[in-house]
Amino acid sequence: MPELRRDPVVGRWVIIDSDHTKGPMDFTKEDNTPTRQAICPFCPGREYQTPPEVGAVRPFNTPANTPGWMVRTIPNKFPVLSSDGILQKDGLGIYDQMTGVGAHEVLIECPDHDKGLTDLTKEEMLAVVNQYQERFRKLSMDSRFKYIVIFKNFGASAGATVEHTHSQIIALPMVPKTVLEELKGAQDYHHTHSHCVFCDIIAQEYVDKERIVLENSSFLAFCPYAPRYAFETWIIPKGHNGDFAVEDHTAQDHLAQILQDVLKKIKKALRNPAYNYYLHTSPIGYGKSACYHWHIEIIPKLTRSVGFEWGTGLHIVPTFPKDAAQYLREA
Amino acid sequence: MPELRRDPVVGRWVIIDSDHTKGPMDFTKEDNTPTRQAICPFCPGREYQTPPEVGAVRPFNTPANTPGWMVRTIPNKFPVLSSDGILQKDGLGIYDQMTGVGAHEVLIECPDHDKGLTDLTKEEMLAVVNQYQERFRKLSMDSRFKYIVIFKNFGASAGATVEHTHSQIIALPMVPKTVLEELKGAQDYHHTHSHCVFCDIIAQEYVDKERIVLENSSFLAFCPYAPRYAFETWIIPKGHNGDFAVEDHTAQDHLAQILQDVLKKIKKALRNPAYNYYLHTSPIGYGKSACYHWHIEIIPKLTRSVGFEWGTGLHIVPTFPKDAAQYLREA
Repeated sequence: MPELRRDPVVGRWVIIDSDHTKGPMDFTKEDNTPTRQAICPFCPGREYQTPPEVGAVRPFNTPANTPGWMVRTIPNKFPVLSSDGILQKDGLGIYDQMTGVGAHEVLIECPDHDKGLTDLTKEEMLAVVNQYQERFRKLSMDSRFKYIVIFKNFGASAGATVEHTHSQIIALPMVPKTVLEELKGAQDYHHTHSHCVFCDIIAQEYVDKERIVLENSSFLAFCPYAPRYAFETWIIPKGHNGDFAVEDHTAQDHLAQILQDVLKKIKKALRNPAYNYYLHTSPIGYGKSACYHWHIEIIPKLTRSVGFEWGTGLHIVPTFPKDAAQYLREA
Repeated sequence: MPELRRDPVVGRWVIIDSDHTKGPMDFTKEDNTPTRQAICPFCPGREYQTPPEVGAVRPFNTPANTPGWMVRTIPNKFPVLSSDGILQKDGLGIYDQMTGVGAHEVLIECPDHDKGLTDLTKEEMLAVVNQYQERFRKLSMDSRFKYIVIFKNFGASAGATVEHTHSQIIALPMVPKTVLEELKGAQDYHHTHSHCVFCDIIAQEYVDKERIVLENSSFLAFCPYAPRYAFETWIIPKGHNGDFAVEDHTAQDHLAQILQDVLKKIKKALRNPAYNYYLHTSPIGYGKSACYHWHIEIIPKLTRSVGFEWGTGLHIVPTFPKDAAQYLREA
C-alpha cells in the first residue's frame, strides 16, 4: 500500500511509492566526470574571457582577474535578470509586471578543472562557504533586492551548462514562491504552537533517528519525512537561526564540513549523480525571526518529473527517506 | 531588460527572459514518432495482457476485453495509489500520513498503434473526451476520493513509458497542492472583486488579443500572460463553469475539436514535441462555485527545469506568450 505523507512546513502531500521502491542501483547511471575541455573560460589564465570578478578568495598580492584565486565570483555572462536599471512596476489590466532587475553571479569554486566540491581540501571548501556568505551580504545591501538565492547545479541533467565546478547566486526583487510558502507555513505553525516548526522537525528527527544521515556540533543532515525526490537531503543548523548571513566563522567551518561529507556520501552511494542544492534563508530585512530557520536542500537528480507532478504538485517518491538515509549513512 | 510577470490566480512570478528569447526552431528537436513495437499490450488482440477494462467506447455487440473498441480504460498495471483498502490517517509526532488509497487508470485513446491524438477523426476525438467525462463521473462516486486529475504524457521526455497513445486518470484522497493554490487564489480574488478571476482573464485576453491562439463558440485557447513554460497553452470554457463533469454533449464536442486543433498546431509549430496536459477542475463535491473555472493546461516539453526553478518556484521562460501564440496561430 503506497503511503501519503504531509510536509509539516508547507502542507504538501507526497506519495511514497512503497510498491515499487528503488535503491541506489535502480536509477539510471549518468557519467558526470569532468572531461578535459580545450577552452574552459572558468580555468585560471582565461580570466579575461569572463566579466570582471566581483568577489574572490585570493592572496593579497594577486591582482583581480589574474590567476592565484581559490574561489572567484563573476557576473553571469547570460544573466536571467539585469543588474542595471530601476525597479519599475506596471499593470496591464488584471496583470502585474515589473522590470527584471536583479543580480546573477557565478561562483567558481576551485581553479582546477578536474576537481569537484568533494575533492576540495577543508580549507578550500571553507573558502567556498565564506564566499557564499560574503556575496550574500554584499548583495543584501542593494535596496532593489528582496531575496537572494544561492544554488548549485551539478551535472548536465541538473542543468549545469559549464562543467567547471561552480555555484550561482541570484538576487531577486521579490520573495520567490517556494520561500513565501515556507515562511507562511512556519508563521502559521508558530502562531498555533509558539515554536519554530523547523526546530520541532529537528527534535522529531532525534526521536525517530532513522532519517538522520550525519551531524556535527552545529548542523544536522537528514532525509526529510515527506520529500519531493528520492534521496532528498537537508542540512539545517541545530540552533534556531533564520538568517544564513549571521552565521559565524565556526558555523561556516562546520557547514563546509557537513556539506562536503553529505555530497561525498551522495556521490558514493548514488554513483556520482547529477544534483542540485539551494539555500533557503529569510528574505532581506526580515530581521531576527522566531519562525523561520535557514537550511540547505540537496536534490540528487535521479528521476524525472512528469505531467502528473506538474499538474498536481504531488510528487511520487520511489525511496523511503529512512532507506535513503541508511544508504547514505553506510556509504 | 528581462520582464517579471505575476500570475493573477496564484500570484506566482515568472521571469520572461527577453534577452535570450527562443522561437520554435531554437529548442532541441526530439523524435516522438511511434515505432512499430513487436509487443504492445495496448494494441487490440492483446487485451488479455492488461488488467480487465473498467470503461470503454465500443459497439454493443463486442464483449469487454476483446477488440472492437474505440477507446478503452484499464487500471494501471503499476498504480501509484492502491484502489483497495480503507483510507486511514495517522500521525507520527509532528508528521501526518494516510494510506495511499486512490485509483490510477490508463485510457487508451485509439486502437491503432501508429496514431496519435492529432490523427484521430472528429468522432474518435469526441470518444476520448466522452470517456474522460465518463470515468471522471464514475470515480467521483467513490466516497474515499476528493479529487480526480486527468492528464496526458506524450513522448519519453514528458514521461510517457508506453508509446501507444493514452491518457491517465488518477483519483486522490485529498486535493493536490496546485489545485488548492488555484482555489485559494480564485476565492481571494472573488472576495475582493466579486468576479471569477478566470472569467476576468478571458475578458482581458479579448482586450489584449495578442495571446489568443484560437477559439470556437464554447472554448478559448490562449498562451497565458505569466506562463511557467515556453508555449504553455490553456484551453478554457468561455462561459463560467467550475466543474468539468457537468459539460454537455455540445461542449464536449467543441472541447474535442479545440483540443485536437491546438495539439495539431503545437505538433506543427514545434516539430512534434513531447508534451503534457492536465485538466484542472473543482474538487469532488465542491458544488456550483462562483470562484473556480475548469480548464486544461498544455505544456510542451521544450526546456528543462533546473536547480534555480526547483529552489525558488520561479520559472524562467524564454518565449513571450504573445510570440508563442503568434507561432501557434500561424502554424
